[in-house]
Amino acid sequence: MRETVLTMMSSRIREVANAALGNPDVLAFWFGESDEVTPLAVREAAMRSLERGETFYGHNLGLAELRAALARYTAGLHAGAYDERIAVTSSGVNALMLATQLLVGAGDDVVAVVPVWPNLTQQPTVMGAQVRRVALRPDAQGTWRLDLQAMIDAIGPRTKVALVNSPNNPTGWTLQPHEQRALLAHCRRTGTWLVADEVYERMWFGGGATVAEPPRDGRSPRGTRAEGESGESRTAPSFLDVAQPDDRLIVVHSFSKSFLMTGWRLGWMVVPDARVLAQIGKLIEFNTSCAPEFVQHGGMAALALGDAFVDALARRLRACRDRLLGHLRELPGVTVAVPPGGLYAFLKVDGQADSLAFAQRLLAEHGLGLAPGIAFGPEGEGWLRWCFASRDPERLDRGVQRLAQALRL
Amino acid sequence: MRETVLTMMSSRIREVANAALGNPDVLAFWFGESDEVTPLAVREAAMRSLERGETFYGHNLGLAELRAALARYTAGLHAGAYDERIAVTSSGVNALMLATQLLVGAGDDVVAVVPVWPNLTQQPTVMGAQVRRVALRPDAQGTWRLDLQAMIDAIGPRTKVALVNSPNNPTGWTLQPHEQRALLAHCRRTGTWLVADEVYERMWFGGGATVAEPPRDGRSPRGTRAEGESGESRTAPSFLDVAQPDDRLIVVHSFSKSFLMTGWRLGWMVVPDARVLAQIGKLIEFNTSCAPEFVQHGGMAALALGDAFVDALARRLRACRDRLLGHLRELPGVTVAVPPGGLYAFLKVDGQADSLAFAQRLLAEHGLGLAPGIAFGPEGEGWLRWCFASRDPERLDRGVQRLAQALRL
Repeated sequence: MRETVLTMMSSRIREVANAALGNPDVLAFWFGESDEVTPLAVREAAMRSLERGETFYGHNLGLAELRAALARYTAGLHAGAYDERIAVTSSGVNALMLATQLLVGAGDDVVAVVPVWPNLTQQPTVMGAQVRRVALRPDAQGTWRLDLQAMIDAIGPRTKVALVNSPNNPTGWTLQPHEQRALLAHCRRTGTWLVADEVYERMWFGGGATVAEPPRDGRSPRGTRAEGESGESRTAPSFLDVAQPDDRLIVVHSFSKSFLMTGWRLGWMVVPDARVLAQIGKLIEFNTSCAPEFVQHGGMAALALGDAFVDALARRLRACRDRLLGHLRELPGVTVAVPPGGLYAFLKVDGQADSLAFAQRLLAEHGLGLAPGIAFGPEGEGWLRWCFASRDPERLDRGVQRLAQALRL
Repeated sequence: MRETVLTMMSSRIREVANAALGNPDVLAFWFGESDEVTPLAVREAAMRSLERGETFYGHNLGLAELRAALARYTAGLHAGAYDERIAVTSSGVNALMLATQLLVGAGDDVVAVVPVWPNLTQQPTVMGAQVRRVALRPDAQGTWRLDLQAMIDAIGPRTKVALVNSPNNPTGWTLQPHEQRALLAHCRRTGTWLVADEVYERMWFGGGATVAEPPRDGRSPRGTRAEGESGESRTAPSFLDVAQPDDRLIVVHSFSKSFLMTGWRLGWMVVPDARVLAQIGKLIEFNTSCAPEFVQHGGMAALALGDAFVDALARRLRACRDRLLGHLRELPGVTVAVPPGGLYAFLKVDGQADSLAFAQRLLAEHGLGLAPGIAFGPEGEGWLRWCFASRDPERLDRGVQRLAQALRL
């Protein structure tokens, strides 16, 4: 077995969670998924496909009608033409692995903004590449910020790939359009590919650089910016809004978050052109060959739900966020900022420097399941990730009560 | 983009087939799948899971009950204990990619028996490894044989992995137990991992080294060896029958062929022990994270169909094989042996040295869709692969008529 694989950290989230999976006494907020089931219309579309007997090998790049629907969906959010630029993949993480296999080999230089979902930095490691980390830093209020110049300085002519996950898991940090433009301009000079993990683009609650302060009473705020229904942007800033089709850019998406389809393992990627697409098609053949046709029919039905569904989901998530944050910010010793996007609150508790030990204690003594910040890299040490996607918002209240108990408040 | 990827051949089968996908006038035998739909019980199990709302992330290694069922299934075919040795994967090809990521990196030495399904040799190439090819050779009757000593000589202390696909796609060549023992003994000395692609083990028609001659009249032969129902081996020789649990052996399987589930993308792998399994679990997280739970429920239902289903399928396929081979061997100028296992006849036509050009001409002028032998490596040049898995056996007759027409017979 390869030393590279043997020395890879296994998930620190799993290290906490495995001890208590399925334990009904635990309030678990550790994984990045809602507890809402996939919409019935989506499930029924897959069931009808199974009834029709659509159980054969499919095209490497996905069903033509799904690819066309994704091209329309993308064009609806980000002006541009996306035909012959979209590959359907066996999950978002699979799309990222395909991009990695396409772009980096042994010894290649990769730069990533961190802390981040660990898979993103482990994939280049599997391929034998070297990952250099550019750290977001929290301010005193717990808002994480990028030192743009540090990121630009880190990317040189030898850098094959710059990895950016925005809105960021776990911090909620979101790259702004002027930063995207600066990064893109620099990567054009160095010949570096941008791989953008934008799976949270529709889980977007705040427009521009302004972040709404949560209400202290747990009710939703009024009149804040960038409500989906208010005519402002429905999506977080995307590299697709600032890039040209011939830029070295791969944007990765997933049905998981926007359509409550985590378990379906269906994603897609947007690439520059048909030439790149053909290379991805080859790699898909060697990785999973194709996504199941009946799963892809689920994807078609999800897109057909339209903006009304996604916007309503984002509103529910925003309410969850505001409810959780409203409570957390009342706890003395807790530092946490309001994330403008994503599914997570990222918080720090005074005096708790060892996030793994603290998460394990919260679980064992108080039945509260959070993800330790160290799971996202050393930059996240001392912090905890709390997924606020919850069908029953009162679960969030009970979770906060358990945290308060642990803090002897 | 990596030169390694850019220079990879895309599928030569697709190169022929893409021109005519969906054309009802073409009789297509180019892909490795039956035209039979997945059994209803399997589809219904997935549909019920979707109804129950099982749409969330699952365990990296698969559902505990599916892994237990696979351990029982494997123990039923190959004496041994398989608990904590099985990982569920997002297809057989995905299992092979995971094994490859676990075992080989840039510059590593890999030895493969060829000609072979191209994915098997391309996966190490994606990882930057060097693949050396040990060629099967056809005799005058078209039976492909391994020079065992050449294979053993090729595997040295630097060889990380030996890749064996048996029964072999495309030739039907099948490794015999004494050859497996010799290879295994040698690999123990060199420290080389054996990666065995045994997805056709249940598509097995002949026992031992004896291959039934097909009847000249197209009827099934009587009294040949190794019928499933006659009490002889139901499976092709497997490395699991000769290896010890601590051998460096990974055996890859798929639901695709044995259970008519090509489009489901569900497979599994058998590894030595829990320590190796933990490494595979990490890699699954970075590749697809898990297989969909409702797809896995399909897999459970497939296993519940039991031997009766698989044996009946193998009998239908055997009848297809015998029917096709009976016809082909009557055509002057055609060389083809009876494959003891697998889904394919591998044939040569006198005077047709360029398999791609010949396959394209058969398609364009005669509406016959076969896979060119060059798709499986230079060793297959001059040959054609014909998948005989056909719900309607008369399709095979019509295909042979078209070939005869092309040969002006």
